[in-house]
Amino acid sequence: MTTSAFDHPFLSGLLGDSEVGAYFSVEADVRAMLAFEAALAKVEATQGVISADAAGRISAVCSEFAPDILSLRTATARDGVVVADLVRQLRDAVGGDFAKSVHVGATSQDVIDTSLMLRLKAVALVFSTRLSAVVDLFDQLDHSFGGDALMGRTRMQAAIPITVSDRLRAWSSPLQAYIDRLREQRFPLQFGGAAGTLEKLGDKAAEVRAGLAQELDLADEQQWQSQRAPVADFANLLSLISGSLGKFGQDIALLAQAGEEIELAGGGGSSAMAHKQNPVAAEALVALARFNATQLAGIHQSLVHEQERSGAAWTLEWLILPQMVMAAAASLRLAQELAANIRRIGRKQ
Amino acid sequence: MTTSAFDHPFLSGLLGDSEVGAYFSVEADVRAMLAFEAALAKVEATQGVISADAAGRISAVCSEFAPDILSLRTATARDGVVVADLVRQLRDAVGGDFAKSVHVGATSQDVIDTSLMLRLKAVALVFSTRLSAVVDLFDQLDHSFGGDALMGRTRMQAAIPITVSDRLRAWSSPLQAYIDRLREQRFPLQFGGAAGTLEKLGDKAAEVRAGLAQELDLADEQQWQSQRAPVADFANLLSLISGSLGKFGQDIALLAQAGEEIELAGGGGSSAMAHKQNPVAAEALVALARFNATQLAGIHQSLVHEQERSGAAWTLEWLILPQMVMAAAASLRLAQELAANIRRIGRKQ
Amino acid sequence: MTTSAFDHPFLSGLLGDSEVGAYFSVEADVRAMLAFEAALAKVEATQGVISADAAGRISAVCSEFAPDILSLRTATARDGVVVADLVRQLRDAVGGDFAKSVHVGATSQDVIDTSLMLRLKAVALVFSTRLSAVVDLFDQLDHSFGGDALMGRTRMQAAIPITVSDRLRAWSSPLQAYIDRLREQRFPLQFGGAAGTLEKLGDKAAEVRAGLAQELDLADEQQWQSQRAPVADFANLLSLISGSLGKFGQDIALLAQAGEEIELAGGGGSSAMAHKQNPVAAEALVALARFNATQLAGIHQSLVHEQERSGAAWTLEWLILPQMVMAAAASLRLAQELAANIRRIGRKQ
Amino acid sequence: MTTSAFDHPFLSGLLGDSEVGAYFSVEADVRAMLAFEAALAKVEATQGVISADAAGRISAVCSEFAPDILSLRTATARDGVVVADLVRQLRDAVGGDFAKSVHVGATSQDVIDTSLMLRLKAVALVFSTRLSAVVDLFDQLDHSFGGDALMGRTRMQAAIPITVSDRLRAWSSPLQAYIDRLREQRFPLQFGGAAGTLEKLGDKAAEVRAGLAQELDLADEQQWQSQRAPVADFANLLSLISGSLGKFGQDIALLAQAGEEIELAGGGGSSAMAHKQNPVAAEALVALARFNATQLAGIHQSLVHEQERSGAAWTLEWLILPQMVMAAAASLRLAQELAANIRRIGRKQ
Repeated sequence: MTTSAFDHPFLSGLLGDSEVGAYFSVEADVRAMLAFEAALAKVEATQGVISADAAGRISAVCSEFAPDILSLRTATARDGVVVADLVRQLRDAVGGDFAKSVHVGATSQDVIDTSLMLRLKAVALVFSTRLSAVVDLFDQLDHSFGGDALMGRTRMQAAIPITVSDRLRAWSSPLQAYIDRLREQRFPLQFGGAAGTLEKLGDKAAEVRAGLAQELDLADEQQWQSQRAPVADFANLLSLISGSLGKFGQDIALLAQAGEEIELAGGGGSSAMAHKQNPVAAEALVALARFNATQLAGIHQSLVHEQERSGAAWTLEWLILPQMVMAAAASLRLAQELAANIRRIGRKQ
Repeated sequence: MTTSAFDHPFLSGLLGDSEVGAYFSVEADVRAMLAFEAALAKVEATQGVISADAAGRISAVCSEFAPDILSLRTATARDGVVVADLVRQLRDAVGGDFAKSVHVGATSQDVIDTSLMLRLKAVALVFSTRLSAVVDLFDQLDHSFGGDALMGRTRMQAAIPITVSDRLRAWSSPLQAYIDRLREQRFPLQFGGAAGTLEKLGDKAAEVRAGLAQELDLADEQQWQSQRAPVADFANLLSLISGSLGKFGQDIALLAQAGEEIELAGGGGSSAMAHKQNPVAAEALVALARFNATQLAGIHQSLVHEQERSGAAWTLEWLILPQMVMAAAASLRLAQELAANIRRIGRKQ
Repeated sequence: MTTSAFDHPFLSGLLGDSEVGAYFSVEADVRAMLAFEAALAKVEATQGVISADAAGRISAVCSEFAPDILSLRTATARDGVVVADLVRQLRDAVGGDFAKSVHVGATSQDVIDTSLMLRLKAVALVFSTRLSAVVDLFDQLDHSFGGDALMGRTRMQAAIPITVSDRLRAWSSPLQAYIDRLREQRFPLQFGGAAGTLEKLGDKAAEVRAGLAQELDLADEQQWQSQRAPVADFANLLSLISGSLGKFGQDIALLAQAGEEIELAGGGGSSAMAHKQNPVAAEALVALARFNATQLAGIHQSLVHEQERSGAAWTLEWLILPQMVMAAAASLRLAQELAANIRRIGRKQ
Repeated sequence: MTTSAFDHPFLSGLLGDSEVGAYFSVEADVRAMLAFEAALAKVEATQGVISADAAGRISAVCSEFAPDILSLRTATARDGVVVADLVRQLRDAVGGDFAKSVHVGATSQDVIDTSLMLRLKAVALVFSTRLSAVVDLFDQLDHSFGGDALMGRTRMQAAIPITVSDRLRAWSSPLQAYIDRLREQRFPLQFGGAAGTLEKLGDKAAEVRAGLAQELDLADEQQWQSQRAPVADFANLLSLISGSLGKFGQDIALLAQAGEEIELAGGGGSSAMAHKQNPVAAEALVALARFNATQLAGIHQSLVHEQERSGAAWTLEWLILPQMVMAAAASLRLAQELAANIRRIGRKQ
């Protein structure tokens, strides 16, 4: 099945992104969840919650364990989350007395939300690099054409002449701000236990949490099981990125319609009209911007996350967030491609 | 890659639907697009636009043609749509003089939108059957428990006693209405040529369109390339379905929290608390309802479909509609499961 | 206060609509709620639930009663709905023994939802008339310019020549379909009592409801207190209308940018550039289309309407629906204005 | 007309906020726009762009000028923005040779966006104070009941016991973070002239902009006419605030339904059932959270702001942003009220 355009056998040519998509593969998710379990065991051993031998065994198993995915699927259908079965399988693999030292004091949400944060952190680095690449391309265009004339347009009408530099600045400066925000973004560990109180760890709770955050290189924060601002806020940044790139795409499409002020390489062909050169990437940028703007509403609905943990609100995040990441990723890929395809912009003065 | 929960190796256990998902596989899409090309050739032969021999050859090739998907992917990246390359491949497979008789007078949107309508029509039948199954389960519950007492609740407070029948009617009656709507739903052929005017078919245009609609068993309507109400309206129905089932899910979750008035089989377990029986399907119904409500905004943004064809607005539909169908499908599957798991509702009077 | 652009002292010049806005004034709402109470008393007298004298007195008072709005405001703050205080005030005005015959068997939602339906029904008639006016203007343009040439554009690029008729058909035909839907639209009475069971009316319930529907000229349907498809479905139609008009606006704005193929009267001026003629109405149509597309998601969130009545989901409708009506109203007004301002479209061949 | 619940004669009792609403009155907007014009004149005099006498006269007139609102309304209908007519009226009031020194080098968007930022900055201070008040109320509850037991609930089921402190922390800690963000929030001056280049100010452009920012106590940033992240980002914060308060409301409503663990004062009455005490404020908080989550999508659609200025995208902001502010304001007011009405929470251990 391939209901998502991001993963689709042929639509992914336009809308997919294999580098970022890899972070949302089942392999990457399982790997991150096992990294959580291994780090938890290691830190709990340091704190004397479990034995060092148990931690060693758990760590060794986690490093190469490949769970039965079909079993995970059946269990998710039943439990609503994958973790109970993953932990059961992991305990079986660890075996013996050490089995009970797996997942001590943790709950499903600790594993899943932390896996998400580990992967979003890696994605943020990719995005930061890509944004820089787009900014660089705009700088190069500025170097080549910055002083050339462009008709400034307001309300879809010619207003007064501006320079290509002026327009490039409107495209580029928000991206620079997003690079900074991605770099400053905190990716918090989620660790709270069954109802957020780490009750099974007693007076070791704070130390285990701090150690776990350090081990996983995440920010050490109070559990946020039912306080979803970290997710909603990151989604906002994703939509800001695709939104600003959508403005770039819309501007290019309008320039391409007018025709005289831009020359593009790489436009797409038509099944009915051989002569056309369609600004395909530009239009896709607009579509992806509107997609993420739409999705953001759903993520913010998830802020109404009742009690200690809401299955409904949390599941809604799973349905939406990975696709927002992919839309931003595809936007960044397409924006690079489109910026690189600008052969000329503006008019010599 | 598996960024969509509907297709995900383990999340699809909860949120997927293999029966309906099959209609959004690349195979089903290609099959429907080739059905369009074969039917077009057949009807154009009848109208003397192409030769009967050409139509015979095209039809024979379409019935078993398996396109090079990787080539389709590359082409979609370039052209923004798959059709130009699919037609090219199909022409190669047809070969010789007949090749030029493929896709005569048609455009990308004719192929893609018609393929969508063919599949949505089949999905509508599945949904109608599933809605009936849920209604039947409610009828059975009514037979068993209808006269029993239930506390009527307004504004999250006990109001006055009602009967189980009263509550069941609130769950069931919207579904009955949706069955009727699905049965009355028109699924229109899309056929307009490059800019909606069927200019290449001259005075045969109306006959070819009527014949094509009949051949494909779709409604014969004026081309709707840039008038997307058929898509937006069907999306509205999808969200009404998942929304009404979300109300059912929310009600069950609230009954399960209160505890006394319902007994459920099949609840999910917890990785941290062995004693819990979570109303997993009920919560997933709420998540899916909120998902589709969110998506509907994006589909309606696509109504601003500029000029004869908007790449941006159309691509936005591709990103959203298949997932709305899947969310409705999963809702219907889960609602059946949940209704069948109600062991008791209300209190004997 | 004037936080809504639809009511704003100066923004309403662009975005308001005094004719339709009148249906959402407090006077119109109170008038419709009192019409419900008067009709209820009349029908209940016919059915022997209250005395004919009581009904006469209630009807007379309702016809001229002006409630204390400040008291209603205070009560809404406390109760979350206006009806308890309105009924209390009405009972005081009726006075004596007849006071207890007011609002017999009814609940807040009966009064408020029925008032909404009475007013939406009237609005639908206004919209139907306005849509016809826009269709007529398109017909006139077709008569004047239909045979002239227009460049057909797909994916923001010149495709092949079409005629002005072709473009006008894409703008007009969805509107014709909406006229038909508005005329067929059912506006159901809401009447269910405290928890939807009309328990206080005993075996007279069905007759009272049928009589009430007839008296108010609304459709007689089972109570839909917690089944909000009638509201969500009407909202969908509002967004289809503004969406199709938004496509018209977008097309005009793009024609105006290109410049050669359209001549418009009535464009707006600029504070900085005296020479500009901005396609203000065209852009406002796009904004209103995107506004309603956005809002539709919120109305569909309200489908998750828990138990017998949800204060949360219902209040969300109040926040959104009136503004969707106003956006559609403003769209229709602006579309008429814009269509009437087209002095020329296309090029003589 | 009163289509907005925030301004409605009786609904505003529940959903309005007179303190914050005042910032969106026409008086406040006009006052802020005139403050911009006065400050601009003052700074331009300092820089020698206009004479000191002109600036003195403009400043004096601005301090008491009351424009003809009906004329502004008519002009907004025509021009799509209010500024051209406001400047014309202001020039008339200034009179003589000084008239031409009004609004030198500025454009509509400079005036309107800067007026918005001035008022949002003031609102942010109000919100910060209100958030602190809610946090204080939670602290008081913690002092009184923090050690008491509460049933921790996950997935709508009893999980394990927690303390009242644990729950209060989940409500309070996001609010503390929002206080910090509101305090750090930059509110940028908008100043770019007709197409963002301040072309009329020549080499004085940077000094005038810096002086204007200082005069108005706003952040001095490059014009952001077509780069709407400042607006979208603030809208995100508004929805985070109402979202976190919606979680608090949902939790209270669920506690109120269960009944044993909370005692509330001030619940609302029912027109049909005298015995009920409805958690009206709690439900309104959920509605307002879902409202703002919905609206955020519309604001993010506005990021696709084409060319130097988009009438469509900008108008969409006007339709949405003020209402998001009001929803957040009402949420904060209701949350204070609701927290103050908690008489008891949890159970003594």
